[in-house]
Order: sequence, then C-alpha cells, then structure tokens
Amino acid sequence: MERKGLLIVVSGFAGSGKGTLMKRLTGDYDNYSLSVSMTTRKPRPGEVDGREYFFVTKEEFERKIEDGGLIEYAAYVENYYGTPREYVEEQIAEGKDVVLEIETQGALKVKERFPDSILIFVLPPSVEELYKRLKNRGTETEDVIRKRMSRAAKEADTIEKYDYIVINDKVDECVKKLHGFIEAAHYTPDRNEEFIRSIKDDLEQLWKGEN
Amino acid sequence: MERKGLLIVVSGFAGSGKGTLMKRLTGDYDNYSLSVSMTTRKPRPGEVDGREYFFVTKEEFERKIEDGGLIEYAAYVENYYGTPREYVEEQIAEGKDVVLEIETQGALKVKERFPDSILIFVLPPSVEELYKRLKNRGTETEDVIRKRMSRAAKEADTIEKYDYIVINDKVDECVKKLHGFIEAAHYTPDRNEEFIRSIKDDLEQLWKGEN
Repeated sequence: MERKGLLIVVSGFAGSGKGTLMKRLTGDYDNYSLSVSMTTRKPRPGEVDGREYFFVTKEEFERKIEDGGLIEYAAYVENYYGTPREYVEEQIAEGKDVVLEIETQGALKVKERFPDSILIFVLPPSVEELYKRLKNRGTETEDVIRKRMSRAAKEADTIEKYDYIVINDKVDECVKKLHGFIEAAHYTPDRNEEFIRSIKDDLEQLWKGEN
Repeated sequence: MERKGLLIVVSGFAGSGKGTLMKRLTGDYDNYSLSVSMTTRKPRPGEVDGREYFFVTKEEFERKIEDGGLIEYAAYVENYYGTPREYVEEQIAEGKDVVLEIETQGALKVKERFPDSILIFVLPPSVEELYKRLKNRGTETEDVIRKRMSRAAKEADTIEKYDYIVINDKVDECVKKLHGFIEAAHYTPDRNEEFIRSIKDDLEQLWKGEN
C-alpha cells in the first residue's frame, strides 16, 4: 500500500514547548521532514542559514511572494516570515510527512489552501504553568512575558479550528501522541483511495452478482 | 483532563478477522468495553448468553424495539440482531470506549444517530487473501463462501463512509493501529471542550487586553 506524505501544521503559544516537541518528533521517527521557514529578520547568534531559517533580504522575499513560491507568509515587527513551497512539495512527493511550525493565522491559511493538511495545537497543562515556563526561561522581561500571554489569549480563539490538541505535560508521552495523530491520519479512506479502489475492483469483477 | 468515553463501530467482510482483532483490542488495553449484541437466533453449541449474544425471543426483541432500547437493529434470515442501548450508555458514562462489531448498514445508522462515533472498516490485504481465509476455515461450503464474497462486494460500497480503514495483515500491528486511531480521536477539540474552555477563560481573565 503506497503511503502519501502529509502536511502537518503545528502551532502553540510561546512557552508551550512546541519547538522541543518538533525536534523530538522529527528525530525519533524517520517519516518526518521539518520545514524551514524563510525570514527577512537578521540571524541571532548561533542561528544557521538553512537550519533555523533561510535568511533572505526583503527584495528576495518579495520576489518569492510574487513567484508564488510561498505556501503562506506573514509580516511581524517589520519582518517577513514564510514557508517555501518547493521543499514542502518535494518532501511530500517522496512520501515524507512535512511538519510546519507556524503561528495560528498562517496555520489557518495553510488549512484553507490545503484542506488535507493536519493542524495540531500544542497546549500547556494550564495557564499558570505557561506563565511559569516563560518566567523560568529568565531571558524575557516581565513586559515581554505580558505581551506573550496577551497574544496567547488571542491565539486561543483559533483552537477549535485545529484537528487535534495535545497537552505538553510530559515530553515523551506528548511526542508519542503527536506521532499517533499523524499515523491515524494516514488511514482515512480518502487517503487510501487507490487501495480501496483495488479491493472494490477485484470484488466487483470476481464476485458481484454471485448469489 | 476528564476523558469522555467514545462509541467505536467496527465492521469488515466475513473473513477479515475483525472478531480476533476485537478480542485482542479489548484484552490488550483497559479502556475498552465490548458491546454484546441481542439476537433472536438460537445459540450455537458453545455460545453463552451474555457473552456472544443476549439470546431473546422474538417478542422480547420487539418489545425492546418499541421501548427504544436498541441503538440499531436489523433482521437477517428471519432473525433479529441489535445493539442494546443501556449497556453502551452506562459504559460511555464511565469513560469507557465502547466497541460495537456490527455490519455496514447498522454501522451507518449508528453514525447517523451518534455523529460523534468513530467508524472503522477492517480490510483484508487483498481479495485473494480474503477468499483464501474463508476457504481455509474449512467450515463453509463453496456455495456459502461465494455468498460471503458476493456480500463483501456490496459492503465495499460503504467503505468511504467510515472514518478509518485498517488492513488486517499482522494482528499485533493491526491492534496497535486500531488503538492509535481511537486514542487520536480523544484529542480533537470538540471532545475536549471543557479543558479548552478553562484555558481560554484563564487567559481571558488574566491576560486579555494586556499589551
């Protein structure tokens, strides 16, 4: 039975731990490819072009938009962020499940254009825990943390539009759950039309009308 | 996070091995209850009332229909077969996932009345393999086997209405897949409204408007 690659979109509040989950998921199982976003923002220390992001100029990004080379894109704080189409389509054609980690508005745009994509929302066990995690990072000011929590409040309005939610309590269990959702999605009838057709054809030709 | 019990409906051609899968699934994991059907046919040697079926008279069955005590029922070869409502509802209320093994027409009726139920179709690896399995049982005449294959040809028309298909090649893998489908179904947003509501409320009360 041939297996079609799927487009998986993962979102979650800042501090939900989705980055760690994505690294684990794509590391633990070999059916995944993690899509790398394109951005016009400058690389931070330690970030590598083609690993964290493809770093491009504003002009290069806008040319990409015009060429239809992005699955989705958005502008934040004067920078563009987007998902290059080519890599995603190549990987899916090879039967890989491509994982995009993008924010909620981008995710909903992807679902609109690719109704067959699977949207997963990573949630913290509680709002209190989310706040604690952001606080414990120790890298953000209280003001930045407030902004992130406020943004989470807005993003939460989109949860019902996702296909699955997962609560990031224990990372190991969470990664297994994510993998389970994606595995299950491979076994819907609409994703196995060829196999179903072959069973139906054989039954039809050999056995229909026998009674 | 409270976990709601789900109604799981499993169908498959005669010879697809769904009976074995159901026994393994409900034996290997403790979140399942296997629903026992009610019938007016006579018990076969070795069959126990309340285990294979609840064996009742035609009058008892018809009273059950009138009382609305069956989730679905059908008549075959002068006998009634149906799913008693009470047990299913009790088990779901206790958080159990109740598994019904019923034929395709009954399954579609259940989906109509309980849109939240999960329908799974068990398929053989091939039609040739299905025929071999029926043949190798050695209990049915060639004529009965032909009837079963012909019936399979008709039942195949309903596959697309199921939520998932599973190919019964290796039993162990197949049982794990079934369990995976059902686990995944527990994590859709509509089945976790309470938890999502609590996250939204906390974010709204504590953080909305902060900027």
